[in-house]
Amino acid sequence: MKVVVLGSGAWGTALAMVLCENGHDVTLWSHRAGKAAELAQSRQNPQLKGVTLPASMSFSGDIACVQGADMVVCATASYAVRDTAKAMAPYVTAETVVVSVTKGIERGSHLRMTQVIASETAATACQVVALSGPSHAEEVSRKLPTGCVSASDNAKAAELVQDAFMNSYFRIYTSDDPVGVELGGAIKNVMALSCGVCDGMGFGDNTKALLMTRAITEISRLVLAMGGQEATLAGLAGVGDLIVTCTSGHSRNRQAGILIGQGKSTQEAMDAVGAVVEGYYAAQSVMELAEEFGVEMPISQCAYQVLCHGRDVHDVIDELMTRSKKGE
Amino acid sequence: MKVVVLGSGAWGTALAMVLCENGHDVTLWSHRAGKAAELAQSRQNPQLKGVTLPASMSFSGDIACVQGADMVVCATASYAVRDTAKAMAPYVTAETVVVSVTKGIERGSHLRMTQVIASETAATACQVVALSGPSHAEEVSRKLPTGCVSASDNAKAAELVQDAFMNSYFRIYTSDDPVGVELGGAIKNVMALSCGVCDGMGFGDNTKALLMTRAITEISRLVLAMGGQEATLAGLAGVGDLIVTCTSGHSRNRQAGILIGQGKSTQEAMDAVGAVVEGYYAAQSVMELAEEFGVEMPISQCAYQVLCHGRDVHDVIDELMTRSKKGE
Repeated sequence: MKVVVLGSGAWGTALAMVLCENGHDVTLWSHRAGKAAELAQSRQNPQLKGVTLPASMSFSGDIACVQGADMVVCATASYAVRDTAKAMAPYVTAETVVVSVTKGIERGSHLRMTQVIASETAATACQVVALSGPSHAEEVSRKLPTGCVSASDNAKAAELVQDAFMNSYFRIYTSDDPVGVELGGAIKNVMALSCGVCDGMGFGDNTKALLMTRAITEISRLVLAMGGQEATLAGLAGVGDLIVTCTSGHSRNRQAGILIGQGKSTQEAMDAVGAVVEGYYAAQSVMELAEEFGVEMPISQCAYQVLCHGRDVHDVIDELMTRSKKGE
Repeated sequence: MKVVVLGSGAWGTALAMVLCENGHDVTLWSHRAGKAAELAQSRQNPQLKGVTLPASMSFSGDIACVQGADMVVCATASYAVRDTAKAMAPYVTAETVVVSVTKGIERGSHLRMTQVIASETAATACQVVALSGPSHAEEVSRKLPTGCVSASDNAKAAELVQDAFMNSYFRIYTSDDPVGVELGGAIKNVMALSCGVCDGMGFGDNTKALLMTRAITEISRLVLAMGGQEATLAGLAGVGDLIVTCTSGHSRNRQAGILIGQGKSTQEAMDAVGAVVEGYYAAQSVMELAEEFGVEMPISQCAYQVLCHGRDVHDVIDELMTRSKKGE
């Protein structure tokens, strides 16, 4: 199969490596032509230390490389997905399968990434599939056993993505619930930030497990209201991804949360982490979605108040712990 | 309320502290009369370092202290639950609520702990409720925010337990699914052992998240076959407890698994850990239940083969990763 991966960050590169390993004809596209040339020459991506890119991998800085591809993997940052989809649209056809591996909700529109891509490629009627799960790119590039979910309303398209990616260290399950799979991945950053706050305040493993479990419950409620399936959140793209993000030392969201828990303001924490803290922006979108769909999301609401309105964290924990008695 | 807690280990003691804090008249019973006297004198439990037991807590080594109790909390090790229930049976009535906080499945009979208690107290028709969740005793004794589930077929009994325990740092949800709540707690030790093996082999966060998530899926299948509810495993007594156990440095099951992953035999690992590794014994019971109820449990089966039949771990990982393609 001819596959083009759009976006040569850590995740796009790691997935391109998996696809090469599986015998596909792979081109990795970079937004900057200079980066494509660098990668072609060095066969190294600085974001994946110690890994050499396979000789069979091609590189391009020209979006026209999408022409003739059987599969396009869209792996750019969430803010760049719409522009990238628009740029590639002239080169895809009804036979192309587009795989979205970006986690996020478009600001303002609240569209999922597959919806953003579908809206820009509507004229071609290509299939768009979401691929998500607990998957640090550097671990996949080192061939450590990893599992993800390929989700689409179209079972054949989901299976085609499963076939393309699956091998002895990258196991893919299919799902017919892109809503649940994509929202799980997008909202977990808010929860990773919140877990970081708990860690920063010196709370223990019990508190974190409580937070993570109840977070899944409230995300499930939103997913159900938005037409997805509750059970998806008990899977790899829900609790699986949450586990990886909330327990990893690598997560910028968690790092920022730790600083906030230690008493820094949100702005100070984001400055100190020195990178985009996606959970901060996602918190606002989640609150807007919760209101729009009339869903109670107490943890997300508290996170939003702490992050965006400087509310005291102790107050918030007290409020969460002393809510009225409930069934699980 | 007059409450007697049976078993003065870390968990029984921490729960007795919560109950004292909530204003109940609490007696902590020890199997050894000598231990009761020690606790009464020192007001310290060596298993909960740095914590002073409240002045209002009473201690006893005489099982007759159960007489007249409104609530009895059974917090002994799983192998001692049947004998303890038999010993207390003459002192309970139809009005007594018995709370089981022990995680385990009785060997041979495969009964859950509430069933063991119910079978020994059948003549009295007392209510038996399961209380479970992600709850390291030392963290509860330090009043760190913690959440558990109170589960019974009898909603009133579950709510009574919720009322007795709930406060600003110990949040209790009710559930009508004791099957799911108890099996989640019992089987997670097998999975903690397996996660330890992954850690010992040098696998990453992706692998552990995959293992934990798919573990919940297969435990859910067993719970459903045994008359419980799948959704329970997405909650505190399922994935919540699994998260705490699989990511904690304290878990003996995980410690033993790490040694096995590093190449030691099961026996060597158990000797090195120097304590009962419950997951080892649970693995056999889980396999027997999976066969009895005709449920596919690939992770448990592989764990059983590694632990009890010395199968090579690399083989097992290969087998799990290259199973046929599936939906999630």
